Amino acid sequence: MLNRSAKEKMQSDQTKKRKGPADPDRFNRQIEFILEADKLKRTLRKTILMDRSRRENSAEHSWHIALTVLVFSEYAEDKDIDLCRVMKMLLIHDLVEIDAGDTYCYDDEGRKDQGLREAKAAERIFNLLPADQTRAFRELWDEFEARVTPESRFANALDRIQPFLYNYYTDGQIWQENNIKSRQVKSRMKPVKDGSTILWNYVSSLIEDSVQKGFLAK
Amino acid sequence: MLNRSAKEKMQSDQTKKRKGPADPDRFNRQIEFILEADKLKRTLRKTILMDRSRRENSAEHSWHIALTVLVFSEYAEDKDIDLCRVMKMLLIHDLVEIDAGDTYCYDDEGRKDQGLREAKAAERIFNLLPADQTRAFRELWDEFEARVTPESRFANALDRIQPFLYNYYTDGQIWQENNIKSRQVKSRMKPVKDGSTILWNYVSSLIEDSVQKGFLAK
Repeated sequence: MLNRSAKEKMQSDQTKKRKGPADPDRFNRQIEFILEADKLKRTLRKTILMDRSRRENSAEHSWHIALTVLVFSEYAEDKDIDLCRVMKMLLIHDLVEIDAGDTYCYDDEGRKDQGLREAKAAERIFNLLPADQTRAFRELWDEFEARVTPESRFANALDRIQPFLYNYYTDGQIWQENNIKSRQVKSRMKPVKDGSTILWNYVSSLIEDSVQKGFLAK
Repeated sequence: MLNRSAKEKMQSDQTKKRKGPADPDRFNRQIEFILEADKLKRTLRKTILMDRSRRENSAEHSWHIALTVLVFSEYAEDKDIDLCRVMKMLLIHDLVEIDAGDTYCYDDEGRKDQGLREAKAAERIFNLLPADQTRAFRELWDEFEARVTPESRFANALDRIQPFLYNYYTDGQIWQENNIKSRQVKSRMKPVKDGSTILWNYVSSLIEDSVQKGFLAK
């Protein structure tokens, strides 16, 4: 039987032999990125929660729309899309807001340099990762932004429909506070059409209903 | 050329012919579920954000760990796992907390009836969905909870490692406030071992370091 000090020595040797990540620098970069991502929880959007208690942040918004993929997948325009890639895009699409902040979709002034601010942010934030992951994340973000592939079109549709639903179900509070007109909402919602005809038709009917109910100015 | 009223009539006819969801009851259930999910943003965890400004909520935590799948996938114990299913599990794993609340992992009293409270919550919340989706979500949640499949083991590893990292990088503030001992953290972290030897070894070394630095009581 081993005595106490021998046991301790063995444990210490085991500790030294612990298999760590093959590339510690790579691992450290990954940890740094994960900790950096935490900051997205402090990026506030215009949208308010359903109980109107506070503004939504971009991290929880990203969760909500990634979850919506699982619920609404049957309404995607293209039935053969890779839903996993849609989820990935939605999980990372707002990370640039850590630096660039959330730009309100009806803030014409803020939107002028939005592209530039977000591209700069993508450069910094995705480069925290090891090079192969920087490329992979950047490709997903570029794909989302370009709205060309069926996956990115569906992802964009969900990204737009979620705040729209919130506006509708909170009686258009934020629309009214910002004096938003129905033609602005229609224009903002157009990408929904490319991602899902069914969801677009639903949005169109709710826009009409919002005008009728006075949630949204004509 | 059509006159104004004819145009209006055509538009009105087009509105009537809009293709809506094939099954409106199904669609309404899906919308209700999506709106209900919003409540998870109001479930507060013990964990604090990295800047210590406030407690984290379960929705943003779910986003963070689903994102971590994309970063840490190479450390999964089983190399052939379905990462898409890991993400799905993580996106839905905390929905039960809408009813059951977050139970602090070191709250032995609260954990006594946690299983019961969460099973009841799963019953209500997943049943908001159409039957086929109720089954699919419930299966994912059961799989996550059982920690038997390689996918669920990796998912659980990430679910445990994220708050652990936060504790470590905020100098153990929440551990100290709750008088947590290193053996409790070790025990809580054990499922990390099943999901990823490399991440487990990393966690083990940070536990030792936390004790040395005084973040965590021996």
